[in-house]
Amino acid sequence: MRLVPGATIGILGAGQLGRMLAMAAARLGLKSHVFAPDADAPAFDVAAAKTVAAYEDEAALARFAEAVDVVTYEFENVPIACAEFLSERRPLRPNARALALTQDRLPEKTFLQDIGLETAPFLAIEDAGALIRAVASLGRPSILKTRRFGYDGKGQALVREGSDLAALFRGLGTEPTILEGFVRFEREISIIAARNLDGDFAAYDLCENEHERHILARTRVPAAVQPATEAAARDIARQVIEALDYVGVLAVELFLVRDYDGAERLIVNEVAPRVHNSGHWTIEGALTSQFEQHVRAIAGWPLGATTRLGAIEMRNLIGEEAANWPDILAQPELRLHLYGKVEARPGRKMGHVTRIRPGS
Amino acid sequence: MRLVPGATIGILGAGQLGRMLAMAAARLGLKSHVFAPDADAPAFDVAAAKTVAAYEDEAALARFAEAVDVVTYEFENVPIACAEFLSERRPLRPNARALALTQDRLPEKTFLQDIGLETAPFLAIEDAGALIRAVASLGRPSILKTRRFGYDGKGQALVREGSDLAALFRGLGTEPTILEGFVRFEREISIIAARNLDGDFAAYDLCENEHERHILARTRVPAAVQPATEAAARDIARQVIEALDYVGVLAVELFLVRDYDGAERLIVNEVAPRVHNSGHWTIEGALTSQFEQHVRAIAGWPLGATTRLGAIEMRNLIGEEAANWPDILAQPELRLHLYGKVEARPGRKMGHVTRIRPGS
Repeated sequence: MRLVPGATIGILGAGQLGRMLAMAAARLGLKSHVFAPDADAPAFDVAAAKTVAAYEDEAALARFAEAVDVVTYEFENVPIACAEFLSERRPLRPNARALALTQDRLPEKTFLQDIGLETAPFLAIEDAGALIRAVASLGRPSILKTRRFGYDGKGQALVREGSDLAALFRGLGTEPTILEGFVRFEREISIIAARNLDGDFAAYDLCENEHERHILARTRVPAAVQPATEAAARDIARQVIEALDYVGVLAVELFLVRDYDGAERLIVNEVAPRVHNSGHWTIEGALTSQFEQHVRAIAGWPLGATTRLGAIEMRNLIGEEAANWPDILAQPELRLHLYGKVEARPGRKMGHVTRIRPGS
Repeated sequence: MRLVPGATIGILGAGQLGRMLAMAAARLGLKSHVFAPDADAPAFDVAAAKTVAAYEDEAALARFAEAVDVVTYEFENVPIACAEFLSERRPLRPNARALALTQDRLPEKTFLQDIGLETAPFLAIEDAGALIRAVASLGRPSILKTRRFGYDGKGQALVREGSDLAALFRGLGTEPTILEGFVRFEREISIIAARNLDGDFAAYDLCENEHERHILARTRVPAAVQPATEAAARDIARQVIEALDYVGVLAVELFLVRDYDGAERLIVNEVAPRVHNSGHWTIEGALTSQFEQHVRAIAGWPLGATTRLGAIEMRNLIGEEAANWPDILAQPELRLHLYGKVEARPGRKMGHVTRIRPGS
């Protein structure tokens, strides 16, 4: 099913990604109907219609499905029951399988290995005894992670020399966990790619990312990598996107490892079935933004050109950093983006700033 | 009064200009409250709040003023009583004088001549006898224009050899009119400029415009003009903007005349106290779009860089031309903008398309 201008995109989730998706949709003459439980969320300010309800509220979901032409989501923790309920009524793009696989680290990593991609070694942990055996197998340091609802470093604990494994296991509560082997990466990289209903594929130039306290701090494009690495990343994205029969924009987070002979190698960290923070530079730094690309893909339209317009640096504004907006505005070449969040909690993504050096 | 993120901009008018202003405001963390009489208008889809009421409805205007921090407008025909009512309650940017001068051709042209700028010769027409005397003075061809509410060629009649002056005069109804001498221009040019609360001035590169049936069809940037002409246009924009103590984005439409010696000369056609169709290319073609620039100016913030990112062609989609959206989307390097208007009436601006050739 292909949309025509004037049609309505249903967006699950009303954070900054939904906000930027809704604006991209509006630019193309589409309406957005945003569904989220928190009335105060950023995307509602730019949406033509909104539903404030729980993702479990089937009556509200049924009305939402009636009101929209296609459903998409801005976050991977949409309850699968919600995704399946909606996908019986309207096209859900990306599909529910992409959600199910990426919202749980165990099937996600299993899927990635099954299609031949390299990930960190991992073992599922069912109890404290399994943790002891897994640490013996994967060594220290290694990382104990909840299988679900982890983002920005939440739900993770480093297993060091001398760590009390029983305490670490108790600390992550009653959640199912996995233990991941520690990857001695040189740098963190991501690739943002898209596939549309016709199976066309397009990827942006590789992004080089720096995290601070597990939260993305800065993205630079182009990434300073060997040409073979750029090609390998595109291949990885293409394999993931095709194996999932994916429609929309998807991000693959990668570790860049340098082998003893100096060669670069990519290890897949995780897959985000959505537009991604490391792709925010595309709003002004590429001919087609990742948000427009996602809208084009889920609308059944052709993909846009991913041509980069210059050398880019994107910096996130986390928590109180957003209070520096006057200094940022005073630098006329910086592009300020604020998400309209009222409370600048520590670790909260409040906005971002992009610098383009045109033509380079 | 300077805004802080989270503040609300009140926008009078809900057409495509208001729509693009509201999106620029949202990107900067500001909310928009759009006020317009037509519930179905394009800007409402991307506004955090809306009022559907007549510009004469003082109760609605008073509530609107209460709800916003600054008021701006997307069209120059805001009733002066409405502008003055609001400006007593909230900062109105640009000011009511800019509105009053530009919504009536007689004071507009008088103002332009008073500050030393060249316009077409003109005479006010009070009655059919005055028209006969004015045509004797300004010659044929000349153009009879209503003083108010003229746009896209509406309210104009060409006075040719043999034209029946009494019939022409009757044809424009009971509206006050002026007769303008005919300018044998070579090309049509516009300049988009901005001034903020601190008096800082910034202008974009000159735009070269082609009209079809009196409606803007295409804009090309850079304009192929002599460097002295580019400088002269900037000086004209600066003179106008400073004489009006103007805050916001303003467009000056200019005729480029070639003198017998080959020199280029600029004649001011009209001033638009708002963002302008010939500046739509700045959305992806300049570091700061005209919409963001206007928001920055009226917010009391620093202006952004007007740096152009490539060679630009912007084409309007008028009426049924918008039905070509699939062909436009199929060209991945084109940027499609649709305004969300349901009915494609002849002459109606439905969207536009921008092509950037990066770096040139």
